[in-house]
Amino acid sequence: MGDISQVKALVFDVFGTVVDWRTSIIRELEAFGAQKGISADWAAFTDDWRGLYQPSMEEVRSGRRPWTILDVLHRESLETLLAKYGITGLSEAEKDHLNRVWHRLTPWPDSVPGLQRLKSRYLIGTLSNGNVGLLAWMAKNAGLPWDVILGAEVARAYKPLPEAYRRTAEILGLTPEQMMLVAAHNDDLAAAAAQGYATAFVARPTEYGPRQTKDFQADRDWDVVTDSFLGLADALDCP
Amino acid sequence: MGDISQVKALVFDVFGTVVDWRTSIIRELEAFGAQKGISADWAAFTDDWRGLYQPSMEEVRSGRRPWTILDVLHRESLETLLAKYGITGLSEAEKDHLNRVWHRLTPWPDSVPGLQRLKSRYLIGTLSNGNVGLLAWMAKNAGLPWDVILGAEVARAYKPLPEAYRRTAEILGLTPEQMMLVAAHNDDLAAAAAQGYATAFVARPTEYGPRQTKDFQADRDWDVVTDSFLGLADALDCP
Repeated sequence: MGDISQVKALVFDVFGTVVDWRTSIIRELEAFGAQKGISADWAAFTDDWRGLYQPSMEEVRSGRRPWTILDVLHRESLETLLAKYGITGLSEAEKDHLNRVWHRLTPWPDSVPGLQRLKSRYLIGTLSNGNVGLLAWMAKNAGLPWDVILGAEVARAYKPLPEAYRRTAEILGLTPEQMMLVAAHNDDLAAAAAQGYATAFVARPTEYGPRQTKDFQADRDWDVVTDSFLGLADALDCP
Repeated sequence: MGDISQVKALVFDVFGTVVDWRTSIIRELEAFGAQKGISADWAAFTDDWRGLYQPSMEEVRSGRRPWTILDVLHRESLETLLAKYGITGLSEAEKDHLNRVWHRLTPWPDSVPGLQRLKSRYLIGTLSNGNVGLLAWMAKNAGLPWDVILGAEVARAYKPLPEAYRRTAEILGLTPEQMMLVAAHNDDLAAAAAQGYATAFVARPTEYGPRQTKDFQADRDWDVVTDSFLGLADALDCP
């Protein structure tokens, strides 16, 4: 692949790569259900919520719908699923709180210590389809030490559109070759590499739980292939 | 003023409030001049550079010019001043490096320790006319521990346009009343207060050096009036 000695900024996919969204959401929905006396298959509910993620963004990517942030897409999907699962009688405040579970996701155990090491040598930031507010509050809740929060909302384009990667480099005043995308998803890395980014694959084989069908390993010889942010810090000589 | 117990995020003006742009730039230009054998009144050059700041943004604010980031406006002003001062023969790389002096500004002595205290209780971010790249690299150079970098580029509006304040609150999913602007400039605070923000004035009486004519003290009873970020942390009960 490329010459990674040029890299000045590491930008991270967030959902699945930095945080374990599935376990976090199932746990919180189960607690919510127990407290409210609502029984449901909360794991299936969570998988369905994530299942609506790509179709909802595709409406925006395709141009059929004007720019809409992920918090709003998540909320619309939540309404769809509350109806599907027959859950009624929640207040607007309760639904808002549930929707903001995406702001309260838990990092993988290696994420925070790995980011702290990587930050010593690189500018570290997000390159996520999450909106800035979602990512900022998530970082505040979870202690993610980002230097900068970037992604779809600032670039006004959802990954994997080329503009999401190109514009993020431009905002930092860097060339794509000075950027490295860190992600647990081969398709995200392929889209970044096509724009000239360096690439690091971090395997997260339990992200989708028993439903996971792909991304168990690297599909290509990405610049770095590892299974944790500590491994990435080792590979990039960050003490 | 307002009820500051509602405030969840503190957003900061940067040039003059967080960093001492004038001393930083004069020092770096003097070193550059000595190294290159160029003599000039570098303090006057610095004051002239800052003097072109408002007129250059006004072209964008007025709509006479499409959206343009501050790095570009700074670079155009630099070209104007190199011509005015008769400084010739610099390479593009040298001019780029000089222009990025705005990425290397030094914080006031209380800025970093104050921000660290404020960060324990609030989300802290920028609300600056600087572009995201400028602010991100400045933070990396100076150790400014922002949770999020926001401002004119993300809001697509230069302060003091109302959209700069309104859109910054929206991005964080907060009401204006949940935001506090921290600034050394009464006019910035007045524009924020008009949108519903809480306000903190931090006196920086040496910002403009001997040319300073205003902002020695608070013009109104802002929610907090102090002369350092440590005083702000005390006022907001941040240990």
